Amino acid sequence: MTARVDQERLWRSLMEIGKIGETPKGGCNRVAFTDLDRQGRDLFRTWAEEAGCSISVDGFGNMYARRSGANPDAPVVMAGSHLDTQVKGGKFDGILGVLAGLEAIRTMNDAGIETEAPIEVVNWTNEEGCIFRPMMGYEVWTGLLPLEEALTMNADGEDWNIGERLREMGYAGNGTMMTERNVACYLEAHIEQGPVLEDAGESVGVVDSTQGFAWYEITLTGREAHARPTPIPSRCDAFMGMSLIALEFDRIAREHAPGMGTVGKADIFPNSPNVIPGRVEFTADLRHPDANILDAMDEDFRAKAAEIAAKLKLEMKLEQTVMRPAVEFSKPLADRIEQAAIATGKPYRRMYTGAGHDACNIARFLPTAMIFVPCRDGISHNEAEWAEPEHCATAAQVLTDTLIAAANGEINLGAT
Amino acid sequence: MTARVDQERLWRSLMEIGKIGETPKGGCNRVAFTDLDRQGRDLFRTWAEEAGCSISVDGFGNMYARRSGANPDAPVVMAGSHLDTQVKGGKFDGILGVLAGLEAIRTMNDAGIETEAPIEVVNWTNEEGCIFRPMMGYEVWTGLLPLEEALTMNADGEDWNIGERLREMGYAGNGTMMTERNVACYLEAHIEQGPVLEDAGESVGVVDSTQGFAWYEITLTGREAHARPTPIPSRCDAFMGMSLIALEFDRIAREHAPGMGTVGKADIFPNSPNVIPGRVEFTADLRHPDANILDAMDEDFRAKAAEIAAKLKLEMKLEQTVMRPAVEFSKPLADRIEQAAIATGKPYRRMYTGAGHDACNIARFLPTAMIFVPCRDGISHNEAEWAEPEHCATAAQVLTDTLIAAANGEINLGAT
Repeated sequence: MTARVDQERLWRSLMEIGKIGETPKGGCNRVAFTDLDRQGRDLFRTWAEEAGCSISVDGFGNMYARRSGANPDAPVVMAGSHLDTQVKGGKFDGILGVLAGLEAIRTMNDAGIETEAPIEVVNWTNEEGCIFRPMMGYEVWTGLLPLEEALTMNADGEDWNIGERLREMGYAGNGTMMTERNVACYLEAHIEQGPVLEDAGESVGVVDSTQGFAWYEITLTGREAHARPTPIPSRCDAFMGMSLIALEFDRIAREHAPGMGTVGKADIFPNSPNVIPGRVEFTADLRHPDANILDAMDEDFRAKAAEIAAKLKLEMKLEQTVMRPAVEFSKPLADRIEQAAIATGKPYRRMYTGAGHDACNIARFLPTAMIFVPCRDGISHNEAEWAEPEHCATAAQVLTDTLIAAANGEINLGAT
Repeated sequence: MTARVDQERLWRSLMEIGKIGETPKGGCNRVAFTDLDRQGRDLFRTWAEEAGCSISVDGFGNMYARRSGANPDAPVVMAGSHLDTQVKGGKFDGILGVLAGLEAIRTMNDAGIETEAPIEVVNWTNEEGCIFRPMMGYEVWTGLLPLEEALTMNADGEDWNIGERLREMGYAGNGTMMTERNVACYLEAHIEQGPVLEDAGESVGVVDSTQGFAWYEITLTGREAHARPTPIPSRCDAFMGMSLIALEFDRIAREHAPGMGTVGKADIFPNSPNVIPGRVEFTADLRHPDANILDAMDEDFRAKAAEIAAKLKLEMKLEQTVMRPAVEFSKPLADRIEQAAIATGKPYRRMYTGAGHDACNIARFLPTAMIFVPCRDGISHNEAEWAEPEHCATAAQVLTDTLIAAANGEINLGAT
């Protein structure tokens, strides 16, 4: 391997851009459409231009830093993520994906590598969705959300819309959208936002799929009564119904590893120590990386919940608020990432992503895969978010190798 | 049986005194120490005097309507309850016990029955505890609460104390307290405040014990994390811990029928749909009419809860806030009540009281038992509280028979 990423350089860049919006606790507050967002974009533009890239910006402000290839007509190989953060976010979520792409270009430059196809590093606009909804950049780029509709969105209670703000920031471009271009594939490096790699002592994750999920809102109505004089057989205890159903989520998840089942929110009525709850309202979240298994889990849960409600004489209202099946990433791309991971000599695993990313949605349009970096305690969207310099560099190395292979036509992206 | 209670007369009295403080929804608001309380007392005094009773009032305002016996030195047989209500209370809770006692006296008068021992019908002061703490009447009478301390209690933010208010109402007396008297036993008729009799289609309950109870406050602390990327085996899910423990309460209650286990109040943190709860705080309530079994239930629960917390890697804080063991009432008295119940030809059951009453506490000092009346839907402390005229009369009949037997020395109160 001749092209070795520069761990120090990558880390310096991460820390330097992290100063734009840095919080007292060492996190980052660089919300999309703010002047800090503009400053972050400007710095990335400067660095990319210094690395010999040409910059284009599309109508929604998505930025593309392009390194030419030998064949300008070859489908472009893309990598990226986002530079915006949560209000109390960190210095890695998103930023690492963009700067790992930049580090890949710098590394190719240092090694004097010319690829067949051009490579572009993208910074998606408004991934975090602090003011508007999240992940709008890919929506506009892929054509899911019409540009005009996106540009005329107003922030709640604000007198500006996105189009006006992008113009003020200097990021209202006229670059082409996905449908007008020839794109080979999309890669995204990202912190894991979970504990799996860290817990296993692994340095890098080869992400080959997303985790599907289903959300539910459940109301159980029983009969409120004083605890004192109401014998167990006379009760319609909504709390006991909720407890039984919550444990079904856990059972279903365990029986379908690596499935997940979570009750995150519950409200009890009247919520008084010696009154048998007459009503509970709770949410549930089922997850699985296999769409068919998620369907089976959903069916299992509905049947069990109905059985429990009937047995406890509770009235149940069950609403499925979201059903988002899992998406498979490109196997050839994930396989090539795995090769690169093996080449680093570091421990790795193939895995799915629990968190949502632009890549999860782009995967419906283009061959896509992700590279995960362990993050401390699985924490993200938090000022305590942290990734080790060595792990960041490992991901950048894997990304560099995969980009070169992809841009040299060494990956059969049509294979399954 | 020569002494038959007059159902119409009892019902008329219940409805008439219920007009004092009657609420628009047909309930009653006659809070202790108000002028309405005074009016209720005055009416009871008038009726009792009309029935040939002499009235005495002790220093705490407890009223005693005395029907003489052939032997003025024989230990007095007492029955009663309270005439005060909750702010949104009903016309039966307490009132029925006093007026059933009055009806017993009226019935003996009609039948020309003279008993050996005197009989007194008592109205305890401030059973409901809307302004001060509940059940103070028996506390002062039995000497648990010194009279001077009770009389100098100030209502929160008010400029009057109990002694002053009783003087204003005309109910600051100098009658003797329990320790200065020779009392044979105490009987109390009361609505059940639960659904047992109504559900079973029974007309009267022979109450031979109280239900002991233990209250707990439990905090489980796990690790808050996003539901998305946190595999089940990596979780410390406080909600699952709570669900498992709640079901243990149910199991323990069922294994120790007629025990009860209730989780009435729970607060989940942070209570967000896709965040694994890092902390839950909940209450629990265990009940059983046998003190030894309640102890065993407590032990079982503590062991299981600790096991669950350890298994789920949760930190548990468990505080027992109350432990009130069951009290056995007088068996000879309950047996005699049962005889009287059988004599009515109506369906009945022996049972314990779930709710608390003055009788539950007096039972520690004197032979005591209670007579329960079914109430609609088990509802009390509510304007919808209701008891059927026939059931009220049945209880009064049982009380009358038992009072006569007790006052004629036909019950061996020393037996066990």
